[in-house]
Amino acid sequence: MAQTMKQVVLAAYAQGNPQPGDFRVEEVPIPQPGDGEILLKTLYLAVDPLLRFSVDETVLTGGGRAELGQPMIGPVVSEVVTSNHPDYAAGDVVEGRSGWQEYAVLAPDQSDYRGPPRKLDTTLAPVSTALGALGGPGQTAYEGIVNVGRVTAGETVVISAAAGAVGSIAGQIVKVLGGRAVGIAGGLAKCAALLDLGFDAVADYKAPDFAAQLRAALPEGADVYLDNVGGDVTMTVLPLLKRGARMPMCGFIAYYGVGMEGPGPDRLPGFYRLIMNKGLEIRGFAGMLAGQKGLEDIAGWMKQGRIRFAESIVDGIEAAPAAFSSVFSGHEHVGKLLVRVAHRG
Amino acid sequence: MAQTMKQVVLAAYAQGNPQPGDFRVEEVPIPQPGDGEILLKTLYLAVDPLLRFSVDETVLTGGGRAELGQPMIGPVVSEVVTSNHPDYAAGDVVEGRSGWQEYAVLAPDQSDYRGPPRKLDTTLAPVSTALGALGGPGQTAYEGIVNVGRVTAGETVVISAAAGAVGSIAGQIVKVLGGRAVGIAGGLAKCAALLDLGFDAVADYKAPDFAAQLRAALPEGADVYLDNVGGDVTMTVLPLLKRGARMPMCGFIAYYGVGMEGPGPDRLPGFYRLIMNKGLEIRGFAGMLAGQKGLEDIAGWMKQGRIRFAESIVDGIEAAPAAFSSVFSGHEHVGKLLVRVAHRG
Repeated sequence: MAQTMKQVVLAAYAQGNPQPGDFRVEEVPIPQPGDGEILLKTLYLAVDPLLRFSVDETVLTGGGRAELGQPMIGPVVSEVVTSNHPDYAAGDVVEGRSGWQEYAVLAPDQSDYRGPPRKLDTTLAPVSTALGALGGPGQTAYEGIVNVGRVTAGETVVISAAAGAVGSIAGQIVKVLGGRAVGIAGGLAKCAALLDLGFDAVADYKAPDFAAQLRAALPEGADVYLDNVGGDVTMTVLPLLKRGARMPMCGFIAYYGVGMEGPGPDRLPGFYRLIMNKGLEIRGFAGMLAGQKGLEDIAGWMKQGRIRFAESIVDGIEAAPAAFSSVFSGHEHVGKLLVRVAHRG
Repeated sequence: MAQTMKQVVLAAYAQGNPQPGDFRVEEVPIPQPGDGEILLKTLYLAVDPLLRFSVDETVLTGGGRAELGQPMIGPVVSEVVTSNHPDYAAGDVVEGRSGWQEYAVLAPDQSDYRGPPRKLDTTLAPVSTALGALGGPGQTAYEGIVNVGRVTAGETVVISAAAGAVGSIAGQIVKVLGGRAVGIAGGLAKCAALLDLGFDAVADYKAPDFAAQLRAALPEGADVYLDNVGGDVTMTVLPLLKRGARMPMCGFIAYYGVGMEGPGPDRLPGFYRLIMNKGLEIRGFAGMLAGQKGLEDIAGWMKQGRIRFAESIVDGIEAAPAAFSSVFSGHEHVGKLLVRVAHRG
């Protein structure tokens, strides 16, 4: 085994959308596990949109902040190389938060509130899905559609960022529940991929006739709007919601680079007006609430062939900063965007 | 009986906050009731903040729009003078929507979705309360606290526009349910009146130290925020809400004079951030949902002396335009603001 490894460390907190130059790659010695510790080799890391908050100097939401000069934090899938802990054995594959580095040493008994690394059933699906359909994004999709959205058969659900990790699963859960899934995504390729996944209709937010496309896709309005975006997309959706529609909100990528106030005009009056006018129910939520039940249901649906996972993979830990940055600039990937750091074994 | 009567007619749709000059008083013949019709003499009219939408040329919310040159619409309490309808008798007192005029003829069988005029139990409370605690504002308070807010014993509820018709009842319902009521109002007199009504704590939004007053009143945050206001007040409240707090929204007087967009900066990003950060549940609602059950519960609590109604009365239908305008400029009245058009009998 090599004596050194690469880390992607945070060089600067983000101003607006994250840039590749906010990070740098460093070469450091591979750490050695002590008593009760395990040595992990990173296989995949996720470039989640929500990690925007971890590179924010004035972080306002949960999930922890990355520190300057330290490895970027975030969810990864790893293989156990050496274990000095009875619950883990060499060769186990786990999902945890050991960050953007090729190797990491962890003490499972000293985990934070997220708990020790989660051992994966490697027979169920590719282990990369632990960062997508069978991980946080899957839980978020489940929580939004099943628990917060309370979608029932026959209802119409519109989903922003539908080609993303959360949205692509959410639309398929809508179909499992007997609903009608309408996806919003940027560009023809993404829209075509959504139809291929089983979405009933799509609207391309990058098209000049986006509003007309959306009206055509929602001839009777929508009962639920799963919002991961905010901004112009949401202001186009809201007038098309039915009275009393539910709006589970799991992100707002349009505003991640903005603080509490953006450039005018002030759109909050219109937002209030639409909430009142339509008697909307809006709820912000985090996916972890869905817990194990959500993952078990999704895994069951995957086994039945009713949910397919979509992922896009780029290779090499050095690619992580550019991949992360692309999340905020309307990239062309469909499904969960992952960086493959190493192969198993 | 006189042959003519006064009407307050709409002379111009409002630009920004309504002005007295948006109306004019006209003298017209008193109409005569035909078959199936009743002649009503107006006793009280309500200058509800929500009537702002009725004087908006681009009305976006329910409740109907007033027409230029026609009597201003809105809820009133009237006495039946002559009845050609079997359900009504001379001397009955009713609550209906016959607008800002001294007399009106109605056909109860041809009512709109709001139903025929509601006959009042004149032994229960002064008939003016049919426009306040035992009318729409009471229903709104009930719906917001009981059904949408789902307030339980021991919870802390903060209420904006707490000295208004809705807020003053809402805080007292919180107390009936065993909660802690914190009211936000403008000026010392209003704040003192709220404490007199049984609110546990108050904060004066006109005071330079409003934010500090509110923090002191909410040392452990709030479980529910009944919002009738929006704007600066709400942006001061939101950071003090607990995780998962509910926010029933029944109005947004700060924005009634604004269309979909106000002058910058854009506060919508901060609103999104707080919804997500705190996992808030926001729901716009209209009071009529609480229906008869709400009014019966409030009437019962009033009989037990657990809820007191607060109202401010100005005399003469000519006073209606100025009274309505004052609602939007932080007037000093406490409770429901009413115009007394005539005495009974």
